[in-house]
Amino acid sequence: MKVLDICDPEFATVKPESSVAEAIQRMNDLHVGAVAVVDSEKRVAGIFTERDVLKKVALSGRAPATIKIDEVMTTPVEMATRETTLGEALEVMVEQHFRHLPVADDNGRLLGMLSIRHVLQAHCDDLSHELDALESYASNDGPGG
Amino acid sequence: MKVLDICDPEFATVKPESSVAEAIQRMNDLHVGAVAVVDSEKRVAGIFTERDVLKKVALSGRAPATIKIDEVMTTPVEMATRETTLGEALEVMVEQHFRHLPVADDNGRLLGMLSIRHVLQAHCDDLSHELDALESYASNDGPGG
Repeated sequence: MKVLDICDPEFATVKPESSVAEAIQRMNDLHVGAVAVVDSEKRVAGIFTERDVLKKVALSGRAPATIKIDEVMTTPVEMATRETTLGEALEVMVEQHFRHLPVADDNGRLLGMLSIRHVLQAHCDDLSHELDALESYASNDGPGG
Repeated sequence: MKVLDICDPEFATVKPESSVAEAIQRMNDLHVGAVAVVDSEKRVAGIFTERDVLKKVALSGRAPATIKIDEVMTTPVEMATRETTLGEALEVMVEQHFRHLPVADDNGRLLGMLSIRHVLQAHCDDLSHELDALESYASNDGPGG
């Protein structure tokens, strides 16, 4: 299984000059917890998440419509590629406490967005399948069986 | 493994009369995505999450310090008990799109807070251990081996 197979089917993007209010609206519309900030060439410039809303915006006393996203986004962004395995993505996310990881091509153009929840679910599914296969092997066709 | 074993070691609580600003501050201080709203008897009255911040607060134009938490919390709350299994908790959370599930005693008093990330990680760990055990069984001591 490749990381692109388990990316959210819909992912949210905004431009660097978008407002925080627009970013929050995109997240709410698509029921996601992060937006990728992409330039006019679709290259990833940063990421902005619901955690950023709580840490940088909600208690700032500033109206989200008046804050530009490139003031508060996280940049540079750690990213996955088409070749990144599920295990590698999971390791980066767990170690660095990322909930989201953009997937980009060799030119840094956004291909999709991974969420740790989907990575963990896919990892559990993989393990379940292996377990099923091995259980049926052990019970029916094991060594000497 | 019991659900209480994988609850966040620290969980955030606020009172029904607390402000949304206080709730957000608690979440930020403890690096968690939800607070349980508990009454003076520690009974769970509701839950308030970072998703609620984005959906109900961030674009409302209201200052978080002026909003009482019991206006915007989710109530009643689905809860787990000491007896709930990991699999049961995971099923509820996946089916109902909950990221958090409070664990309460028979009187509705809060014992801990489950997050779907920790439930999924524990579930993966369980599967990995089963797989390791079965692999070593199949390779060394399989039927007839």
